[in-house]
Amino acid sequence: MALTAVRRGFSTKEGPVFASAPVDLNHIFRQTNLHDDLAYVEHRLMQRVESRSPVLSSAGAYITAAGGKRLRAALVLLAARLGNYNLHHASHPAAAIELLHSASLIHDDLVDHTQRRRGRVTVHARWNNTVALVLGDYLFAAATDELANEPDPRLIEWYAAAAQTVVEGELSPVTQLEPLDIALAQYRYKIGCKTAALFKVACQAGMAVAGGTPEEIERLAEFGYHLGMAFQIVDDVLDFTGDEDTLGKPAGNDLREGTLTLPLIYAVMQDDHALLRQVAHTASLDPSQVPELVSAVIDAGGAERALEEARITIEHALACLDRFPSSTTKQALSDIGAFVLARQA
Amino acid sequence: MALTAVRRGFSTKEGPVFASAPVDLNHIFRQTNLHDDLAYVEHRLMQRVESRSPVLSSAGAYITAAGGKRLRAALVLLAARLGNYNLHHASHPAAAIELLHSASLIHDDLVDHTQRRRGRVTVHARWNNTVALVLGDYLFAAATDELANEPDPRLIEWYAAAAQTVVEGELSPVTQLEPLDIALAQYRYKIGCKTAALFKVACQAGMAVAGGTPEEIERLAEFGYHLGMAFQIVDDVLDFTGDEDTLGKPAGNDLREGTLTLPLIYAVMQDDHALLRQVAHTASLDPSQVPELVSAVIDAGGAERALEEARITIEHALACLDRFPSSTTKQALSDIGAFVLARQA
Repeated sequence: MALTAVRRGFSTKEGPVFASAPVDLNHIFRQTNLHDDLAYVEHRLMQRVESRSPVLSSAGAYITAAGGKRLRAALVLLAARLGNYNLHHASHPAAAIELLHSASLIHDDLVDHTQRRRGRVTVHARWNNTVALVLGDYLFAAATDELANEPDPRLIEWYAAAAQTVVEGELSPVTQLEPLDIALAQYRYKIGCKTAALFKVACQAGMAVAGGTPEEIERLAEFGYHLGMAFQIVDDVLDFTGDEDTLGKPAGNDLREGTLTLPLIYAVMQDDHALLRQVAHTASLDPSQVPELVSAVIDAGGAERALEEARITIEHALACLDRFPSSTTKQALSDIGAFVLARQA
Repeated sequence: MALTAVRRGFSTKEGPVFASAPVDLNHIFRQTNLHDDLAYVEHRLMQRVESRSPVLSSAGAYITAAGGKRLRAALVLLAARLGNYNLHHASHPAAAIELLHSASLIHDDLVDHTQRRRGRVTVHARWNNTVALVLGDYLFAAATDELANEPDPRLIEWYAAAAQTVVEGELSPVTQLEPLDIALAQYRYKIGCKTAALFKVACQAGMAVAGGTPEEIERLAEFGYHLGMAFQIVDDVLDFTGDEDTLGKPAGNDLREGTLTLPLIYAVMQDDHALLRQVAHTASLDPSQVPELVSAVIDAGGAERALEEARITIEHALACLDRFPSSTTKQALSDIGAFVLARQA
């Protein structure tokens, strides 16, 4: 399949940045001794989700234990390490951004009736809709509370703007696959809101608490934004190419839910496949057609082209780090770029 | 009915505080020239609910236009007027607290499937559940953003703690009517979280932005807390004694939804009425019994006793203002206490 070739081609690419990029996030964290610092953030998160309400405490601990890779927290800490790093200071935005991320996932799953995430039953499915709604609200407030520990008002401002942007993304669907420029604009706007805004504020806040100059903060903000865009594009590619066992959901899940993403947009642009043409011009899709459509998108090169866009976006991200001298930290941020492109889940 | 006598007795009470208390909130605002300042806050709120998402903007404008009395914003401004008042500074917590209040009402209505509030169709009923969920999240974030304008980190801290407390209250029901001490503790905890926490932070934040001393801030916090407790008790009394046309909902609505409040707790304590005894010992209530139960609660003096508790609570609130010299502002805060007790809706 063409896609595999693209990936293999990328991961063996001969270039200064990706030369020997490890694509395992744990490996990157080990090389930068980040595990202890992330454990510190994790401990704060566990404290933060404690509540006088027993059900909130239980559901909060449940969701924190299933917290995933903590990539956003790691970005805050690594960005801070490019400046005057202080774990205590950096841990506040790191924890706040992970809390916001958890809150928005809980509410997303509630709205989308998602039954499982990261291999675990979702909060509304395990408890009920009220608990999911209230826990999300509680974590939003806990995130704000966490930021109250850092008296730099810019952090609150960026965080609040990002939180608003994330929820705006929730209500900004891609509504059409043609013409291409409209479809691309809608898609980029949506993922910019939904995903890139949080990656951006993570890197921006990390640099700010480490005393970065306005220009350094701006560079990190741009790095984070591009990284987040690429992360979401790859996520959307994996929905077509991913393995059900690894992803925890069958391929074509987005299509089944009516979510139009970049691989489909590019496939429609490039191919006259009857089913693609039909999808481009009708509002609804028969679920039984999903496997055929997934194949059609891959055959038309939609996933491949989307992945190429992710690769270019990562290059834009890494270019934002040019002004920083070489360091283990800078290498780790490059490696995260490689991880984002190569990940399988 | 005994209740009317209690109210009449109160509103003609001969005392320095309540001597000629106007119980119309508009009258209180006029006497303190607060209308223009509240209009300034209202304008900020309208700006705040604007979004790049058209549906969020529409629903946000809809909910802001139905914003009610803005009692919490008025408390911020009046508390600030006890110190070095600056409308611009005071408007930030005033707007933030109203945004938080709106967000929590939208989410409450969603969870409780409430179809109408303040005579208008609720957000989830007019749009859909997703819009209600996301708009609430958006307003929570907008409130945080509003506070980013005031660099005093205490404001963020108090606000975030209050936001957490409000949502904790949502999951803290009164589960039993006997023994009395348990029932009262559950009830007071719930309304302390759900209502008083926000009144408290309103008054506290107002005093803080006006440069109050820690002791002055603490006095205002206590004033607000007691005022909020009384406000909620009266709310719960009105659910038994209120007029359907004024309230916009039939009496006994809380009972119908299984919400156990102070008038019922006191009625069960005081009376051996068969239905009250039955309610005290069963988990569910037949909706057809609600009108009879409403009458039984009133006949047993439950509403009257709850209102007496509200009156004493207001006295506690006003005592917190003792250290402040007489002023139009202090009188207005007293008058708001009288308004809270005498209000019919």
